[in-house]
Amino acid sequence: MHKELLEDIGEKELINRLGKFMPRNQASDDCALIKTKNENLLINNDSLVENVHFDNVTISPQDLGWKAVVSNISDLLSSGSKKTIGITVSLILPSKTEWVWVEELYKGINKALNKYGGIILGGDCSQGNQKTISITAIGIQGELKLRRNACSPGEIILTTGIHGLSKLGYLIQNKNNLDKNISLNEKLIRQSIEHFCRPQVYPHFLTNLLKTRSNTKIKRIGCTDSSDGLFQAVQDLAIASNCKAIMNYSKIPKHKNWPKGDKWDEYYFFGGEDYELVFSLPKKWARKLSKLDKNITEIGFFIQGESSIEFTDNKKNKLLNRTPFKHF
Amino acid sequence: MHKELLEDIGEKELINRLGKFMPRNQASDDCALIKTKNENLLINNDSLVENVHFDNVTISPQDLGWKAVVSNISDLLSSGSKKTIGITVSLILPSKTEWVWVEELYKGINKALNKYGGIILGGDCSQGNQKTISITAIGIQGELKLRRNACSPGEIILTTGIHGLSKLGYLIQNKNNLDKNISLNEKLIRQSIEHFCRPQVYPHFLTNLLKTRSNTKIKRIGCTDSSDGLFQAVQDLAIASNCKAIMNYSKIPKHKNWPKGDKWDEYYFFGGEDYELVFSLPKKWARKLSKLDKNITEIGFFIQGESSIEFTDNKKNKLLNRTPFKHF
Repeated sequence: MHKELLEDIGEKELINRLGKFMPRNQASDDCALIKTKNENLLINNDSLVENVHFDNVTISPQDLGWKAVVSNISDLLSSGSKKTIGITVSLILPSKTEWVWVEELYKGINKALNKYGGIILGGDCSQGNQKTISITAIGIQGELKLRRNACSPGEIILTTGIHGLSKLGYLIQNKNNLDKNISLNEKLIRQSIEHFCRPQVYPHFLTNLLKTRSNTKIKRIGCTDSSDGLFQAVQDLAIASNCKAIMNYSKIPKHKNWPKGDKWDEYYFFGGEDYELVFSLPKKWARKLSKLDKNITEIGFFIQGESSIEFTDNKKNKLLNRTPFKHF
Repeated sequence: MHKELLEDIGEKELINRLGKFMPRNQASDDCALIKTKNENLLINNDSLVENVHFDNVTISPQDLGWKAVVSNISDLLSSGSKKTIGITVSLILPSKTEWVWVEELYKGINKALNKYGGIILGGDCSQGNQKTISITAIGIQGELKLRRNACSPGEIILTTGIHGLSKLGYLIQNKNNLDKNISLNEKLIRQSIEHFCRPQVYPHFLTNLLKTRSNTKIKRIGCTDSSDGLFQAVQDLAIASNCKAIMNYSKIPKHKNWPKGDKWDEYYFFGGEDYELVFSLPKKWARKLSKLDKNITEIGFFIQGESSIEFTDNKKNKLLNRTPFKHF
């Protein structure tokens, strides 16, 4: 079967076809227009580069499109976005890219937007030798400002969901040799691949935070997402808020079939791409929220001290010396 | 002398250093915040890819930074932006890139923002094998909506500035063999290199449009910029507005030392990267504006008919068959 490549299509027809993925009024102008109503906006930009952030072995173009959107929405949610307005999509693709790849990518993009809200505001496509998807997402700032630097000593550290699954999914998709002595539970395998390929986010997080807030004077909450791993998230909060995180290993929520051992701890804490929200709250608020939302767990607390992380269980502190994967 | 490479710096330190290019309150959070006052926003995204849109022979990193900003601001202005709020900068760089290259790039970015307004709202840097600069610019929609599809039959086609200089600058920088029989004027050479490396835009365009408008009921004007060449700009207007452009070759403003000949016409009409504004206005308005602003020239008019371009001088119509440079 003849595979239609971008170089066969030509630039004009390509622009024309890309326009069809967008709402009719957004296509074919120099800029996208956003109507605002005295609301503050949140802007986020994330780029995914082939063979750095993804490859064609571990993820399909449709899943990649989904994931590119979700990783941006996750950043918006972790800043307190109450609604995603839309995204711009900037693609860089080799001329030998098949058109069907682009189509599948946009299918995934639109599926994620259909689920979490927002439209495609604009986009462009340039030639390059490495596939790159750069998305800028725009959301509306909600009533609570979630910021990395808003944690305080005495507050409880919480997380949505569980970590490590995305990393395990990646390793499975990559056919990496995991642990030969361990046979992984089938449900864990399935859920890990799903976490890696079709990560979910928490659109009701802000609503639940507001529902359980008793002191309406509190307008800022310490929060980030775990796209670079749970440790990185807690460390980012500790550094930006200038306080010390004490984590309770025994409270960390794991998949019930998650194996034991240092390597599995490493996947859990450094894996990344889980898009869970990591945040801190005053004690009462934390209790009320984790009671309301069973996906939320207390995992430690902040104290005054040098920006750093420590485990209550001293034996676990060796974990902190591991060097996570770095892109440079 | 030891050259410091990105891979020597490490990811954390790199993020830290990039943060220093941004206003203090914008660094280190997941999203950038934009305060709006019931105003509509314009969003534009442009990516520049090494060896597709630029190379290290023809342009310095500082000029590249300037140009990346200006090309985005040009799109905002051509939509009627009255103020640039800011930009996000997404870089993809090989790990062997020298740090000084990044520093120079940001110097150019900040020089352009200092001149035309706007701040760096956020940015990130990923590893990749081809240098890529992707900028998203956000502006405030002014009173007049400038749109590609707002031209009407009977209106005069106008352009700011002159075209072709940027293309000539590129050829000179690239040490291309130009025309051996022609010795280029020194001023033309200098101005062409400047147009290519440090293009300028027209921040007062919208103000002048409003100053010369007599019918305040007109809220929409047909406009685009000539980043892809003058022909492409006129064609985009003709297609989006569904009318026919008649261009008057003898009225087209050229540099007084611009050589004659088909090749030079081709550079002029297809060159691109001039960032001039190409637009149409009712006759009276066109006269008043070109009287007020000596940088603006009438070059033709729109009539009813199939979306296309024609010259009043039939001999010049062969120019339209040239195939401009395409990226795919």
